[in-house]
Amino acid sequence: MIDTPTLVDQYCHGVLRTELGLGTFETLLGRSAGPPAAGTTFFDTQTGFAVRRWCPPLLGLEPHCPPALYLARRRELGVLESGRRLLRATGISTYLVETGPPGDLTGPVEIAAAGDARAHEIVRLELLAEQVADTSGTVDALLANLAEAVHGAALSAVAFTSVAAVRHGLALAPAPPGPGEVRGAAGRWLAGRRVGGALTDPVLLRHLLWIAVSSGRPLQLHVGDEDPMTLGEFAAATAGLGTDLVLLHGYPYHRQAAHLTSVFPHVYADLGPALARTGARAAAVLAETLELAPFGKLLFSSGARGLPELHVVGARVFREALTRVLADWVRDGAWSGRDAQRVAHMIASGNARRVYRLG
Amino acid sequence: MIDTPTLVDQYCHGVLRTELGLGTFETLLGRSAGPPAAGTTFFDTQTGFAVRRWCPPLLGLEPHCPPALYLARRRELGVLESGRRLLRATGISTYLVETGPPGDLTGPVEIAAAGDARAHEIVRLELLAEQVADTSGTVDALLANLAEAVHGAALSAVAFTSVAAVRHGLALAPAPPGPGEVRGAAGRWLAGRRVGGALTDPVLLRHLLWIAVSSGRPLQLHVGDEDPMTLGEFAAATAGLGTDLVLLHGYPYHRQAAHLTSVFPHVYADLGPALARTGARAAAVLAETLELAPFGKLLFSSGARGLPELHVVGARVFREALTRVLADWVRDGAWSGRDAQRVAHMIASGNARRVYRLG
Amino acid sequence: MIDTPTLVDQYCHGVLRTELGLGTFETLLGRSAGPPAAGTTFFDTQTGFAVRRWCPPLLGLEPHCPPALYLARRRELGVLESGRRLLRATGISTYLVETGPPGDLTGPVEIAAAGDARAHEIVRLELLAEQVADTSGTVDALLANLAEAVHGAALSAVAFTSVAAVRHGLALAPAPPGPGEVRGAAGRWLAGRRVGGALTDPVLLRHLLWIAVSSGRPLQLHVGDEDPMTLGEFAAATAGLGTDLVLLHGYPYHRQAAHLTSVFPHVYADLGPALARTGARAAAVLAETLELAPFGKLLFSSGARGLPELHVVGARVFREALTRVLADWVRDGAWSGRDAQRVAHMIASGNARRVYRLG
Repeated sequence: MIDTPTLVDQYCHGVLRTELGLGTFETLLGRSAGPPAAGTTFFDTQTGFAVRRWCPPLLGLEPHCPPALYLARRRELGVLESGRRLLRATGISTYLVETGPPGDLTGPVEIAAAGDARAHEIVRLELLAEQVADTSGTVDALLANLAEAVHGAALSAVAFTSVAAVRHGLALAPAPPGPGEVRGAAGRWLAGRRVGGALTDPVLLRHLLWIAVSSGRPLQLHVGDEDPMTLGEFAAATAGLGTDLVLLHGYPYHRQAAHLTSVFPHVYADLGPALARTGARAAAVLAETLELAPFGKLLFSSGARGLPELHVVGARVFREALTRVLADWVRDGAWSGRDAQRVAHMIASGNARRVYRLG
Repeated sequence: MIDTPTLVDQYCHGVLRTELGLGTFETLLGRSAGPPAAGTTFFDTQTGFAVRRWCPPLLGLEPHCPPALYLARRRELGVLESGRRLLRATGISTYLVETGPPGDLTGPVEIAAAGDARAHEIVRLELLAEQVADTSGTVDALLANLAEAVHGAALSAVAFTSVAAVRHGLALAPAPPGPGEVRGAAGRWLAGRRVGGALTDPVLLRHLLWIAVSSGRPLQLHVGDEDPMTLGEFAAATAGLGTDLVLLHGYPYHRQAAHLTSVFPHVYADLGPALARTGARAAAVLAETLELAPFGKLLFSSGARGLPELHVVGARVFREALTRVLADWVRDGAWSGRDAQRVAHMIASGNARRVYRLG
Repeated sequence: MIDTPTLVDQYCHGVLRTELGLGTFETLLGRSAGPPAAGTTFFDTQTGFAVRRWCPPLLGLEPHCPPALYLARRRELGVLESGRRLLRATGISTYLVETGPPGDLTGPVEIAAAGDARAHEIVRLELLAEQVADTSGTVDALLANLAEAVHGAALSAVAFTSVAAVRHGLALAPAPPGPGEVRGAAGRWLAGRRVGGALTDPVLLRHLLWIAVSSGRPLQLHVGDEDPMTLGEFAAATAGLGTDLVLLHGYPYHRQAAHLTSVFPHVYADLGPALARTGARAAAVLAETLELAPFGKLLFSSGARGLPELHVVGARVFREALTRVLADWVRDGAWSGRDAQRVAHMIASGNARRVYRLG
């Protein structure tokens, strides 16, 4: 049958370094900022059920055992040992890690050591800009330092990512902003912000994106809850410049994301959270993504953050979904077995190796 | 196997009290205001086929018998007896009935008697406001009576519903309107309307919604054909106030509705017409809704109106879809049987009992 | 089991008359204007795999043989003979052919001869208007000739189609433009255009649509990448006028297109490219379309253009998907076998014969 011997996780975060109680663990399974509704729990989600399916056996317990039992066993082993066991069971050989805001999440070096794998850094543009702003006193300094910081990061990072661009107006004005516009926005931002203040100004975000585009490194765009069809003009404006765009988090608009990958040669789509979050439904969601997307345009990721359990779920759910979907098509005669095996390798790792030049 | 011993129908209407001919019956299966296109019939829809599958055996006929034969048998039994037989075969133990505009539909008391069940009232805000306007001569009287009517209704009704709010601008301005704005809109509405005139003014609709929110009763919002993502700001504005929002009629945007239930603790989603209208496809649509929604956030309904056949179809199609989807996941090892059984009860009745405090 | 003895292809184009190399052939499988991304090929798509599944056996090769082998065999037989073998294996007895811009694509007469079938013409409104503009020197002449050309075409063509109307503002202003507005737009267009210049002016496009509506011939609207929900007002404005609207290319908004067919008696939806482009997934996409659409409102097409392989894929993928979906429902007891067979005939040919009055 179809096998996927090794995975490149093209987008994830590190894991927490501290021991976790049931409440904190549960919070990291949810998607809202706060606690679950009264009378409900985030364990009663596809993510919760997928964690309970795949992770207990890796720590020596029965699948679907109660959460409290699992958490007790996790603490018994300790956060380091349980993390090592979990990550080493993912089948991921290379992690691309968004280093995000500073905190208690492990970085690429630690992930690589814990998971016995390679890891590379993805730099979040907004965070980079905020760090630059913290140490730039004038508009001139800010703008010069921004360009330098992005190009400097491009020397070691494998990709850039932006979480705010789509949400804050990228779709409305796909072209780079003019110098006067940028200076004005930079001045207002510097004047109004305190140290650590977030970048949400659409003009500066666009300016930042276009610096990143000029670096040649693939640019990952968090689509969030937006319909990626709104990105059509930005995609058209950046076509042929030699920089690839990778759409993250397209669900429930994953078919629209797939459509864009079929229309623009430089646009790719991530499969990550759409599968990891939908658990028992991942095969169906993956199959929908495979309707219109050329098979060279889809990239596996776990999208995991905070819990190594989420790296496990991302990888296991993906492998099972991919195997099931492609095997069905081979059995029906719609695909040849040879093509299915080839496409499985492309999506699991080959496409990512090519796009991020992982060698 | 998964079983769902009893259902709470969290949103439905009453049934017609008169004997029906084939034409009237067919019209109630359709979704357009008028007759079907020349050369077509509303029996040739998933709803029509589902009625022909489930209802003839309840009146002593073969499944899928011709519509004319079914209607003849229905008249032979009489509207009361056939209604009784149909409703008692639904497995619904509690009906939440939107009493809607006055007409020849049965109300909660009659439904309860015919179906050998309990029934509670859902009050439609627009209708309440229109009744208040019919008897209020001045802006002051209208505004005072509106607040009194909503809070009075909250004493006996289990929920409020709004059919017009989403369509008429709720999404654009999620905050409550200011007093001057409300008075202006109330004056224009009173001056312009005749007795019975419909409420479509977005300012008054928002005002009404916020009175309902302050009552603490769950507020059901008809999403209609709109993408519920546009409700994000209203959901954010009402978070933490202690009033739950229930999104009705999300299809074909049911995945977006499910997304909102995962992001906002107080947002719930209805499963009703999306399943009843899609018949043979209900399992697939249900499975899509179960991708992102926490399992404590989904509520069964029939969404039926006018024909007890639609209560039957809503209940049967839901039960079969739920059993099939969850049993598949248990068979694959993705869910445990125990969890599946628990989730089935939550969606069939437990979540509704909790949200509507049905005891 | 369900069979579909003959198909009416309600929307397709002709095929190229020249021998094709691998590169040109591949380009016609893609959806972007240019070549595929470096390291990828358009053969690695559902369309590519479907061509390799269905077409090699028709030319005496194994399914899924390498593209180069297939192209060599195709050239060996010659473009005429391979085209004849392919088209005659589609099971299509009537082709409705959009004659499109003049070029090297075969027209209805040639398609009919090659495919041993009947063929009728669909006239593209934009092209007709551009031809009229090429020979009209004044606004008065242009407007008079436009009306005459459309009504003249209606005598022989079975339908009109518009590719630009939805994209260029139809949704914004569903009513016909006023005479002054039309004259102004016509004057600006004549003044600004060169011979062959494309029509994209929204006022003239709307004017053109309303002339077509008045002809009584079905009007096919390319929805393109747009959500057809935006067409609701135009659908409302044209209801009851006696002219049917057929929505083309709804995917990934095919559920929304199906919704419109259930709400408006005169609105129909095409199944074509949504199935032909999604290959192994066609049964799933078809099933989604069958959720809300009345079964008298869906029309098969291949949507093929340029390659007779695409006519084959469109027909084979449709037949297999339809048979599979309906047979599943019959096996589950959701539909009767008799109804399934009847609906299969409706979608395969009956609905098209009725809508286009094919006798």
